[in-house]
Amino acid sequence: MTGLFCLYLAVAMLAPMIVDIIDDNEDWKGFMVTFFLVGSISAAILIANRGEMVPFSPRMGFLLINVLWITTSFASSIPFLLGATEISFTDSVFEAVSGLTTTGATVMTGLEDLPRGLLLWRSTMQWLGGIGIVAMGLLILPFLRVGGMQFFRMESSERADKPVARIQTFASYLITIYVMLTLSCMVTYAAGGMEWFDALNHAMTTIATGGYSTHDTSFAQFGDAVLVTAIIFMLVGALPFTAFFLFLINNDFRKAFDSQIIGLLIIIFALFIPAFIAASDTGAFLPSDAFLHSLFNVVSIVTTTGYATTDYVSWGPLAVSVFLVASFVGGCAGSTAGGFKVYRLIILAQTLRASIRELVYPNGVFPVYYNGRRLAPEALQSITVFFFAFIAILFIFTILLAATGMQFDDAFAGSLSCLTNVGPGITTLIGPAGNFATVPETAKWLMIILMLLGRLEIMTLLVILTPMFWRSD
Amino acid sequence: MTGLFCLYLAVAMLAPMIVDIIDDNEDWKGFMVTFFLVGSISAAILIANRGEMVPFSPRMGFLLINVLWITTSFASSIPFLLGATEISFTDSVFEAVSGLTTTGATVMTGLEDLPRGLLLWRSTMQWLGGIGIVAMGLLILPFLRVGGMQFFRMESSERADKPVARIQTFASYLITIYVMLTLSCMVTYAAGGMEWFDALNHAMTTIATGGYSTHDTSFAQFGDAVLVTAIIFMLVGALPFTAFFLFLINNDFRKAFDSQIIGLLIIIFALFIPAFIAASDTGAFLPSDAFLHSLFNVVSIVTTTGYATTDYVSWGPLAVSVFLVASFVGGCAGSTAGGFKVYRLIILAQTLRASIRELVYPNGVFPVYYNGRRLAPEALQSITVFFFAFIAILFIFTILLAATGMQFDDAFAGSLSCLTNVGPGITTLIGPAGNFATVPETAKWLMIILMLLGRLEIMTLLVILTPMFWRSD
Repeated sequence: MTGLFCLYLAVAMLAPMIVDIIDDNEDWKGFMVTFFLVGSISAAILIANRGEMVPFSPRMGFLLINVLWITTSFASSIPFLLGATEISFTDSVFEAVSGLTTTGATVMTGLEDLPRGLLLWRSTMQWLGGIGIVAMGLLILPFLRVGGMQFFRMESSERADKPVARIQTFASYLITIYVMLTLSCMVTYAAGGMEWFDALNHAMTTIATGGYSTHDTSFAQFGDAVLVTAIIFMLVGALPFTAFFLFLINNDFRKAFDSQIIGLLIIIFALFIPAFIAASDTGAFLPSDAFLHSLFNVVSIVTTTGYATTDYVSWGPLAVSVFLVASFVGGCAGSTAGGFKVYRLIILAQTLRASIRELVYPNGVFPVYYNGRRLAPEALQSITVFFFAFIAILFIFTILLAATGMQFDDAFAGSLSCLTNVGPGITTLIGPAGNFATVPETAKWLMIILMLLGRLEIMTLLVILTPMFWRSD
Repeated sequence: MTGLFCLYLAVAMLAPMIVDIIDDNEDWKGFMVTFFLVGSISAAILIANRGEMVPFSPRMGFLLINVLWITTSFASSIPFLLGATEISFTDSVFEAVSGLTTTGATVMTGLEDLPRGLLLWRSTMQWLGGIGIVAMGLLILPFLRVGGMQFFRMESSERADKPVARIQTFASYLITIYVMLTLSCMVTYAAGGMEWFDALNHAMTTIATGGYSTHDTSFAQFGDAVLVTAIIFMLVGALPFTAFFLFLINNDFRKAFDSQIIGLLIIIFALFIPAFIAASDTGAFLPSDAFLHSLFNVVSIVTTTGYATTDYVSWGPLAVSVFLVASFVGGCAGSTAGGFKVYRLIILAQTLRASIRELVYPNGVFPVYYNGRRLAPEALQSITVFFFAFIAILFIFTILLAATGMQFDDAFAGSLSCLTNVGPGITTLIGPAGNFATVPETAKWLMIILMLLGRLEIMTLLVILTPMFWRSD
């Protein structure tokens, strides 16, 4: 385990550098400055720490993850500050955090008129954030035992032989799969009629379930073929990457088939039905369009992508409540998606079922299984605590956001959609037809905290905010 | 344990009879008919079952509780149907369920013009519902192990000697305490300037944390002395009755002091501060009035009473979000209050704290204690399952209510305030200044289910809805 620490630091410090090398193609000062600034500081840190092997401990792991996400967020905001647009410091950090956490809430309007470099930078942030999330979810969080993630320790990772070599192999497979999926998505988009630049940007933000678009109207101007492509690849982004790994490399279809996948599909179907009814009831769509629009937007919200084809908030109260519930769900563990996560819902539902049995048969023992493994009380406790922290943060931040002067609906919807990294809320102001630009300054900082909390599975960030964490013992 | 069953049935069947004997004073046909109808059917059932001792089993316990609440609800609705007011079947059942569950949501307007008998009947339902809830919470639910209620098994009840005699003694103490508290409240109200009839009615609905008033404007027309009295006795109603029991009869102050009590006071204080700020910011109140109104309404909502002195929804978004959170909290276990319940919040918060410690020190063991007793994994599982069912039902019913044509805000607020047995929601339509009269017919039935679910600690009703429960094995 001792070798991991330096590797992670190096990878993380490489991230902004790689990005800036790509963006170097756009001859544009902001990126150059950022590249040299971030690049040289990173290199300096890397050289200074070379050879030092800090023993890996959970405490160090927590610190590392938080420092990584926060520093990369600030570093990523620099191009917005130096860029062609007049954008405040708060707005640049908001946009960067929303990008890296793959939330996709934006403060920018007139996207069509922005320099292509900045648009590409927004998509790249989401794309890098996406792979960062998958890597964190598969490699680090299971060891930190955050929110029931211990379930996703891979069997291979439990063997102690050559951990660094194994992780390097795994990481290279992961990157290969991620790049291949992105390229497939891009080609399919282009084949469906998108321009290549749009296809590249949207492919990156689709696989990352991020939701940044190059157009203010998001997906409204694209044809049916593009919408179907997006539905498929948003789903792909919300699936556990271990599944692709096991399926493509180990050819082990049985193991690849995680209970999360079927759970996700059932939830999407259950939410699609009322959304379809609501869309049809508006009378504004042909039946086929109502079908496509309701499916697209439900998939977009459940997978925490946040693209929109139309202003579904105007479909009426039934649609609003369906999209509210959809905002909670989230994707699978080990995917690029955020939210509450399907495996937690499955485990809670199974535990509910077992508890009802125990109430009827008080002397019986009804264990809960997940993916064939028995649920330990510790794992249930992790999930309970995550659930409690999730709901508590949702409501505390609703109060805080309302205190900044936001309307109650916006405060609640904003708190939810930032915590779950969905992006658009369920109100007119910050919904699919709205934008976070007019939100008060303080509220934006609160939302930045919410997006980071959501992305770091709450507990990872919460833990470093306790005095206990910093005690020297 | 075998003797309990008949006793409960007899008590429950006596309830409507006693009520009707009281109401006999009002010379009014509806009550007479109800009295003879319900009285004779009850008597017939009682005689038919005399001597039959069904062995007590959890399954019988669940069935009994559900049958009791549902039949008494229907029986209690008859006076509304036969009464002087033109009120539909749905509305009468809604009003009866809202009464017996001490929710306090009403479909009636022009309360001042109603016959006094009907007003007294509304208050009596809440008063009887209140003691029913306390008895159920202290005597039955701990044995059925519903939602972590196993924590409140009294030590005395764990000894097997003479259970029936013990329970009879306990029940008579309970009734004495309940009557004394109600009388004290009534006298204090009258001393504060209320008329005797109002004082009696409000005393009954205050101790029961019910919230039915004899005036459409609830507490708006009363003086400061009355408001202070109400604050004190609403709090009393939300405290665990075991505390009074231990304090008054056993003189054991140390044991009487439950962690729930301090938790409840802290939560009220934490919500009072932002409510006070919101009230002050409106500029409509003197500082002393802002203080009294915010404290009164926060206490009213947290204790799930539902009285209002003013339309706090108009205090702005901050107030709305504070009252939203206040609607969740609920009182203590073993009180007349509903909601999520303070002990569950305390246990979840303590578990969160323990889990953060475990994340920092993965080799340490950090048990959670509640009232000096160590929390078992089974108890945490009960609470987790309750929490999950609570949130799931809240959102599923929001979708269902929205599907009946209610606005999204009203659907969400209605789902919450009925499930927590608070009564008024946080919107204009069903808020403190509103009323449930205009809610669609189907929505009223959904809310009836919600009020019963909330009152029966969700699991008790959920369990009999499963096919498993009815299997013959």
